Amino acid sequence: MLEELKQKVYEANMELPKRNLVTYTWGNVSGIDREKGLFVIKPSGVEYDELKPEDLIVMDLKGNKVEGELNPSSDTETHLVLYNAFPEIGGIVHTHSPFAVSWAQAKRDIPCYGTTHSDYFYGDIPCARNLTAQEIEEAYEKNTGNVIVETFKNRGINPKYIPAVICANHGPFTWGKDASQAVYHSVVLEEVAKMAMYTEQNDIRVMRADQCIQDKHFMRKHGPNAYYGQSKK
Amino acid sequence: MLEELKQKVYEANMELPKRNLVTYTWGNVSGIDREKGLFVIKPSGVEYDELKPEDLIVMDLKGNKVEGELNPSSDTETHLVLYNAFPEIGGIVHTHSPFAVSWAQAKRDIPCYGTTHSDYFYGDIPCARNLTAQEIEEAYEKNTGNVIVETFKNRGINPKYIPAVICANHGPFTWGKDASQAVYHSVVLEEVAKMAMYTEQNDIRVMRADQCIQDKHFMRKHGPNAYYGQSKK
Amino acid sequence: MLEELKQKVYEANMELPKRNLVTYTWGNVSGIDREKGLFVIKPSGVEYDELKPEDLIVMDLKGNKVEGELNPSSDTETHLVLYNAFPEIGGIVHTHSPFAVSWAQAKRDIPCYGTTHSDYFYGDIPCARNLTAQEIEEAYEKNTGNVIVETFKNRGINPKYIPAVICANHGPFTWGKDASQAVYHSVVLEEVAKMAMYTEQNDIRVMRADQCIQDKHFMRKHGPNAYYGQSKK
Amino acid sequence: MLEELKQKVYEANMELPKRNLVTYTWGNVSGIDREKGLFVIKPSGVEYDELKPEDLIVMDLKGNKVEGELNPSSDTETHLVLYNAFPEIGGIVHTHSPFAVSWAQAKRDIPCYGTTHSDYFYGDIPCARNLTAQEIEEAYEKNTGNVIVETFKNRGINPKYIPAVICANHGPFTWGKDASQAVYHSVVLEEVAKMAMYTEQNDIRVMRADQCIQDKHFMRKHGPNAYYGQSKK
Repeated sequence: MLEELKQKVYEANMELPKRNLVTYTWGNVSGIDREKGLFVIKPSGVEYDELKPEDLIVMDLKGNKVEGELNPSSDTETHLVLYNAFPEIGGIVHTHSPFAVSWAQAKRDIPCYGTTHSDYFYGDIPCARNLTAQEIEEAYEKNTGNVIVETFKNRGINPKYIPAVICANHGPFTWGKDASQAVYHSVVLEEVAKMAMYTEQNDIRVMRADQCIQDKHFMRKHGPNAYYGQSKK
Repeated sequence: MLEELKQKVYEANMELPKRNLVTYTWGNVSGIDREKGLFVIKPSGVEYDELKPEDLIVMDLKGNKVEGELNPSSDTETHLVLYNAFPEIGGIVHTHSPFAVSWAQAKRDIPCYGTTHSDYFYGDIPCARNLTAQEIEEAYEKNTGNVIVETFKNRGINPKYIPAVICANHGPFTWGKDASQAVYHSVVLEEVAKMAMYTEQNDIRVMRADQCIQDKHFMRKHGPNAYYGQSKK
Repeated sequence: MLEELKQKVYEANMELPKRNLVTYTWGNVSGIDREKGLFVIKPSGVEYDELKPEDLIVMDLKGNKVEGELNPSSDTETHLVLYNAFPEIGGIVHTHSPFAVSWAQAKRDIPCYGTTHSDYFYGDIPCARNLTAQEIEEAYEKNTGNVIVETFKNRGINPKYIPAVICANHGPFTWGKDASQAVYHSVVLEEVAKMAMYTEQNDIRVMRADQCIQDKHFMRKHGPNAYYGQSKK
Repeated sequence: MLEELKQKVYEANMELPKRNLVTYTWGNVSGIDREKGLFVIKPSGVEYDELKPEDLIVMDLKGNKVEGELNPSSDTETHLVLYNAFPEIGGIVHTHSPFAVSWAQAKRDIPCYGTTHSDYFYGDIPCARNLTAQEIEEAYEKNTGNVIVETFKNRGINPKYIPAVICANHGPFTWGKDASQAVYHSVVLEEVAKMAMYTEQNDIRVMRADQCIQDKHFMRKHGPNAYYGQSKK
């Protein structure tokens, strides 16, 4: 079932090592069929060069495994929470890409210092708070999702405008309209995380980019009158 | 039309991913035929591995599209201003290469710390100021070009002697006698930007290289009695 | 003799340049057959692209060469001490990977700042003290092993829970259930060393990850109720 | 003439881009035939992928071109001074490798922080002083060589024990018993320069490695009783 979606999610998974975003098995991609209410996700701990499209696991939105021999990614519960909370997203990626992780371990939002950032993310990329000992004990992966959702809700962030988060002491999750775009956002996030670190090294007192330039770059790509690229979306 | 120029500009564009200067579509190269007053530029948002020479767009120096099916690069207006203001240049490149961007985001000139820099750039590489909200609103890409020109004029810099600029909060533009040399200067700029950052990390109080060594290295390559390489230019 | 083990240790050695952990000959891998009390190790100073499985040296646990034409790795005495002191380990790796070396040269433990670290190492990765002039004079490589063992003993660290050490002014040693897993731990160590350095650059006052998240990540992979991956180990 | 030496020096030159030590043409290798008193050097400004063994230039030790169509490297006078001053060396390399350049631009010796360094360089790698305006004017490349020689003489450094120097505001020169070993030392220098920079970032107050460990590592590889590798040299 869902052979076409499995193929796409498989290809999105394989893009992670190709783009140097994962070491060994440190990452996973999922994609959802909103009409059927089912999502497809990487199995846990399987090496990328051994992964096959038919190994992917099919889950429903209550967290039941619908198809698949293997165990789904250990982060499946986090994906589940995000799919339920953010109905507009079609794919999710988790990695341990080193620059994004380094901001997550420093427990800092990634500040928007320029147009590379604001071409894709409309404001700082938020760092979600640590889980409490109780939240970890109770349901670690599910509560990881809950804390992400809480972050976007409390801070009034639209997940479509900032399709990425870093979880304190852990690492990044990104999303998009489908699995492929979610991977694209993971690549951009890592590049932006690197540039922000280097920027602070070049001027420790650097300020965020002005709001007007952030508006311009985000909107010329994603606004109602976007003119970047070839088609009016 | 301009098949030969298109081929050269195509090859210069393809050099960007090969030299690791661009992620996805974050860069563009143009080249000009000064006799005909026409320049050729990459179409907007097209992936490099799908780009073909015949996809390139032909523009005139008033900003009219003369040939091409696709939309030209969203930065075309910036190229246009530079071609009109700097009559001696034959090619222009824009990238988001990470070290150059990090200086641009820190809004700092890249200081000349040594001979690698002064072999190609005769003095600090200037950081052009931010655009005002009004300049952005009015004509963002055109005013990006205007601010670059203003920077070189106000500071008395010869664009032939420093064939590069970084735009605050954005990133680098470079130029050269043709598209290929403009790309060459983008590669050098990124290397020099990296070295300057590392140099300050090795000594936070480092001073610029003496003027006499800057003179020597620039002039032995580019002066009237240049003796680097194989031909007297 | 030990042809199968030689092949595995050979493959583990060849993984080092493939994973960019060694420059020239700066690394070595060994693996042990606990039943026979013999271990197999890389010969000293042989280039990786000239290495063949039959070049590997067989040693006994008293430090005698049992088979092999060439000199064993100059670090053989260190491996010997570790095999005798840590009976549960099956393979050992030494490299000069640059980020791990940089912590060793700074003589600092690598602090646990997040889940990438605690997925494999249950606490800070210890930095073993310098050898005294007398210890160096007397038996340098053997005493390097002794100081590693002393570090784990004095600080009450279980070498199975933290399968890595960095030796002050020198570099890392890692181990595992076999040669292949020891290499895996060297790759992870280098990645974690890089992330920890970047993390401090993003916040110089960063604190260690909470114990509860360290417990969770280590235990979900290595504890009695581990649920990461495909099999209950 | 000197066909065998030309082939070896050609191969040593080609190793520079392969080891990521040069961008474009920023480097050159030479090798000498001491009996004939002739050395072979890369021509100036020729791209590595267009270089052929027969393009190499033959020079005598008075600085006369003995064979070759092209102009020799612009740094030929520097090589000449070094061959005349250091009779034990057989090959010389110059690059602009970024980490070594960054120490040169900061005008700092590269401190010996550990065994990776002392396996090849017996003490800090010296930074030669700036040339004066007069020295530059008079004979830039020759005086670059003279200042290197002055540095080793004034500081009592044996060029066989520390086969590398960084020239202030410029970059590294290395040497060895032949062209191939000189390249090897350039690779090691760049790695050591990177590790030293990272080490200071991990502890800004780090001290040099103890003399006893520097002695041990240098001597176990290069001393009269060396035991690293396969042959007693």
